[in-house]
Amino acid sequence: MDPITIVGIVGGILVCMIAAVWEGGNLLHLMEPSAFFLIVGGTTGATLASFPLSQIKEVMACTKWAFRKQPYELSTIVEVFVELATLVRREGLLMLENHPVKIDHPLLKRGLQLMVDGTDPNTLKEMLATQIATAEHDLRIGSSIWQTAGGFSPTIGIIGTVMGLVHVLGNLSNPDDLGPAISVAFMATLYGIAVANIFCLPISKKIASVAKVDAQVGELVVEGITSIQMGENPRIIEEKLLSYLDEHHATMMRARRAAGKDKK
Amino acid sequence: MDPITIVGIVGGILVCMIAAVWEGGNLLHLMEPSAFFLIVGGTTGATLASFPLSQIKEVMACTKWAFRKQPYELSTIVEVFVELATLVRREGLLMLENHPVKIDHPLLKRGLQLMVDGTDPNTLKEMLATQIATAEHDLRIGSSIWQTAGGFSPTIGIIGTVMGLVHVLGNLSNPDDLGPAISVAFMATLYGIAVANIFCLPISKKIASVAKVDAQVGELVVEGITSIQMGENPRIIEEKLLSYLDEHHATMMRARRAAGKDKK
Amino acid sequence: MDPITIVGIVGGILVCMIAAVWEGGNLLHLMEPSAFFLIVGGTTGATLASFPLSQIKEVMACTKWAFRKQPYELSTIVEVFVELATLVRREGLLMLENHPVKIDHPLLKRGLQLMVDGTDPNTLKEMLATQIATAEHDLRIGSSIWQTAGGFSPTIGIIGTVMGLVHVLGNLSNPDDLGPAISVAFMATLYGIAVANIFCLPISKKIASVAKVDAQVGELVVEGITSIQMGENPRIIEEKLLSYLDEHHATMMRARRAAGKDKK
Amino acid sequence: MDPITIVGIVGGILVCMIAAVWEGGNLLHLMEPSAFFLIVGGTTGATLASFPLSQIKEVMACTKWAFRKQPYELSTIVEVFVELATLVRREGLLMLENHPVKIDHPLLKRGLQLMVDGTDPNTLKEMLATQIATAEHDLRIGSSIWQTAGGFSPTIGIIGTVMGLVHVLGNLSNPDDLGPAISVAFMATLYGIAVANIFCLPISKKIASVAKVDAQVGELVVEGITSIQMGENPRIIEEKLLSYLDEHHATMMRARRAAGKDKK
Amino acid sequence: MDPITIVGIVGGILVCMIAAVWEGGNLLHLMEPSAFFLIVGGTTGATLASFPLSQIKEVMACTKWAFRKQPYELSTIVEVFVELATLVRREGLLMLENHPVKIDHPLLKRGLQLMVDGTDPNTLKEMLATQIATAEHDLRIGSSIWQTAGGFSPTIGIIGTVMGLVHVLGNLSNPDDLGPAISVAFMATLYGIAVANIFCLPISKKIASVAKVDAQVGELVVEGITSIQMGENPRIIEEKLLSYLDEHHATMMRARRAAGKDKK
Repeated sequence: MDPITIVGIVGGILVCMIAAVWEGGNLLHLMEPSAFFLIVGGTTGATLASFPLSQIKEVMACTKWAFRKQPYELSTIVEVFVELATLVRREGLLMLENHPVKIDHPLLKRGLQLMVDGTDPNTLKEMLATQIATAEHDLRIGSSIWQTAGGFSPTIGIIGTVMGLVHVLGNLSNPDDLGPAISVAFMATLYGIAVANIFCLPISKKIASVAKVDAQVGELVVEGITSIQMGENPRIIEEKLLSYLDEHHATMMRARRAAGKDKK
Repeated sequence: MDPITIVGIVGGILVCMIAAVWEGGNLLHLMEPSAFFLIVGGTTGATLASFPLSQIKEVMACTKWAFRKQPYELSTIVEVFVELATLVRREGLLMLENHPVKIDHPLLKRGLQLMVDGTDPNTLKEMLATQIATAEHDLRIGSSIWQTAGGFSPTIGIIGTVMGLVHVLGNLSNPDDLGPAISVAFMATLYGIAVANIFCLPISKKIASVAKVDAQVGELVVEGITSIQMGENPRIIEEKLLSYLDEHHATMMRARRAAGKDKK
Repeated sequence: MDPITIVGIVGGILVCMIAAVWEGGNLLHLMEPSAFFLIVGGTTGATLASFPLSQIKEVMACTKWAFRKQPYELSTIVEVFVELATLVRREGLLMLENHPVKIDHPLLKRGLQLMVDGTDPNTLKEMLATQIATAEHDLRIGSSIWQTAGGFSPTIGIIGTVMGLVHVLGNLSNPDDLGPAISVAFMATLYGIAVANIFCLPISKKIASVAKVDAQVGELVVEGITSIQMGENPRIIEEKLLSYLDEHHATMMRARRAAGKDKK
Repeated sequence: MDPITIVGIVGGILVCMIAAVWEGGNLLHLMEPSAFFLIVGGTTGATLASFPLSQIKEVMACTKWAFRKQPYELSTIVEVFVELATLVRREGLLMLENHPVKIDHPLLKRGLQLMVDGTDPNTLKEMLATQIATAEHDLRIGSSIWQTAGGFSPTIGIIGTVMGLVHVLGNLSNPDDLGPAISVAFMATLYGIAVANIFCLPISKKIASVAKVDAQVGELVVEGITSIQMGENPRIIEEKLLSYLDEHHATMMRARRAAGKDKK
Repeated sequence: MDPITIVGIVGGILVCMIAAVWEGGNLLHLMEPSAFFLIVGGTTGATLASFPLSQIKEVMACTKWAFRKQPYELSTIVEVFVELATLVRREGLLMLENHPVKIDHPLLKRGLQLMVDGTDPNTLKEMLATQIATAEHDLRIGSSIWQTAGGFSPTIGIIGTVMGLVHVLGNLSNPDDLGPAISVAFMATLYGIAVANIFCLPISKKIASVAKVDAQVGELVVEGITSIQMGENPRIIEEKLLSYLDEHHATMMRARRAAGKDKK
């Protein structure tokens, strides 16, 4: 699993707690179950109302996917394609049927299978493009559910604080209670902002980032499969795919290839 | 009907009330008819002024549509298309005229009818694409009317609160009334934010989500109809349409097909 | 004239006044000429500075256009096209020269004229598309001028309030005047928000909505004219244009046509 | 020079001053050099840090351009093209070499020169399109520099006010100074909002508006030059270019032309 | 290195400090380690949680790139291309293999190498376009990481302030401590806004600006390489590439060329 999101969220909560204690505060005073109930309940209600049931059901699967460890590097996929292209040139497309692929990428597998089945190049390209778009679309919905929650949470917090202030201001008879009562009212705002910024919005952004990365990897895979099907030169395919890598990695791979050739 | 929006809205309101009572507040103090009148009246006025009469008239129909239960799953539509494609291959296009379609999808029906009428493939595709765009456009207008209302509502609330504060500050002679008077002034802000976040914005987002889902289903239907008209292989059509499903459902359908073949 | 914008704006102002009186306020206390002068003057200044003179000159014409009553329904235009297509098929394009068109739509008129003049189909389509884009562009500028005003107005209000508070806070010698003085300072914020939300922003949104509707009607007109010029079947033209109507209206028109045929 | 931006900015500042005096304020109390230094310095620093040096260098040239008087009307350019097209039809393209063009539009001049040089139509069109895109791009950068400044200015103002409040709240020993000290702290917010809304944002919007107008004019010029190169009929060229004018101006020009023909 | 970002950031901080001292504040009162810890820690946590580990690792490299000095002017690249085009016309493409290029631009080098290798023009164009898109994409991710940090920072500041206020309001027993305690609470807001506006957001905008400049340069390079490969006339290539320069620089280069010809 990609640990950075957990580290970031837990770290953010710890930092807030340490800062509160550092300034002489008492963490127990920051526990206010009614405010917590309001934020979580109200945000959940407003978010549920904003999406069809079918999309709400998918949100956990989608979130889990965003937390996975990226299982392969772009450069590994490029290497796999160069190897496949070399084999196909030598032994023909049908060789792929019994050749185990090193990496477990569903789009790559489906593409190779369709190629072996003799699918027409344009149809194949269109199918894979649709599949990439569907996957990106589903992740974007997951991201936007969390973003919606992160948008409602602070305003629900303001609702809680205003309700608290209305309550306080309507009962000014006992001025000694004024401070603590206002303090309790502000807890709703505090929770609303914290839940949004330390929890919902980072998760939303993480899913959106993963969606973009997956789409980019998918584009590379489609380019690679189309090129193999066209029977292009492995050397050209490699150059094509290296364009999807950043300069640092592309230079490294070219250097490695040059070194490999020298050895031979 | 898709119950989740009702559940979310009612749940959100209940959560706010429970939290208010939990903190020792009196729900009656949160009833302020003048503030409620201001928010609902002012928001309605500003929203009516923002759209042509013809669009305002459509908003309720459009909202009702967003609340409907999604009547069919993507996988059911794919199955229908595979079955139709098999029949058409065997018996020709005219067979469709007397064949009852399992699902009641207006775009699908119109597409099949146009196909039977012998409409030119490009014209047919263009007509269906226009119809999808029109439907999405109409839903988006409904969504943006509710979003506009949700944007005006909190600012009308601030107008109410500032008017209340101006009234209070101009009459400081009786300091005992100060607290309750300010409390009443804040009710407008409370209602403005609550109406926007628990009512208007969730409905707006729900309609927009439904618009996106409908457009995606429509794309699948157009792809399916075009492929049948082209006389493509049912197996290829299925693979094409499966690209519109998420991986989980696509894998399930492929497994079911494989199982079906084994039985034979 | 489309009365809904006037109704919405006047209604919004009335609602605010009624709510103010309801809460025991005095409407006279809400009249503050200096704050009104600041909001209107400052907003006008900042808005004038934001656009070229030529665009400022057009803003009133553009606003008046948005307030007009929509002069024809989409279904009427579809009927006109079906009738024209039938006539042209029977009597040839030149018949159009002496045939009065039922509806007064400038784009439609120009398109028919160009058709009679024997303009090349591609050139004709391009000309009409450019004209639609120009009209939409001009309306969007009008909308964005009002939106800019609606954006500046509340911040000018805050400038007024801060100036008032600075004045008040610098003269704390007489505490009795404090309340009314702060109250006056807040009037600028009140006016700033009210002018934006009850006046400028609704007008801006109305113009933008009208721009979208006009562009959609224009698209239908271009589709219709191109189809007539191609000499297409009136039945096909009708089906094509019905794709631009929502399902409800399209079904109604198909039913009416079917009824018409039965009578014959 | 287009005087409206200067009028708007100076007018906005005057309106603020008059309103301040009207409410009994003293303009001298609104002069706070330290706050002014903070806003101008801090905004400049943050804005400089946001752009490459090369773009910062261009901002003044770009601003001056936005303040120029629009040197020609769209209808004048259309007339020039009709005249040129008539001449070219009669005397051939080379005639353009010695023919002085009435209006001084760099894109028009370059286009005519390239046409005389015998540039290939596609290459010519591409060159002019690139030049329009470059010019629009440069103006947009200028606009976004001012917009960035207008975004930083109010937040720098809040920084100043919070710093002032921290200072005040840390020294509550002398309550008489409290009011004036808070008043001084608020000056930073006042300046921050005023600089953004009366100065930076209007200039940014003005430049963006001019960029849009220039791009639209450029489109018309490219259309005109391409049509002349194709040797199209002057009457068709006029109709084509009139599509870029709003209906009012287009109708006027058509009327004038009809009148001209009658005289002959 | 491009010094302007450093100058802007350091200058912004200095301006804030000078303004604070000018108004009689004590800089030591503005040092609050707990608030600084909260802002930096909380912002880092929320930002880490928002991106995959692989993207976080690249952010420093990406930031360093944005701070580099722009190594060449557009006009220099145009000159290089004109020279290369002249040589290639005279001596053929293979001449490029041993010809040192004056400027060190990785895309230009790769493009020339691919041209010498005899790559097919369409493939070459596609490869370079992909490489430009990849580079721009990577810079945009870097920019959006800083932007995300700049978005979280002020809200973490508000969390700190609300926590401080809750602490203060819960302990009103000693009114003398009230002022300084609130003052400390506000430090979190101050730091949150300052870190965002003087540090994170300018860096984010700088990276985004550099990404746009690089993409524009890349477009020019692709245009130049494609034109050379097509064997186009150096004079035409120059005119084509000059379209990417602003009018001032383009006019200068044309004047220089005319002068050069006169000398001959």
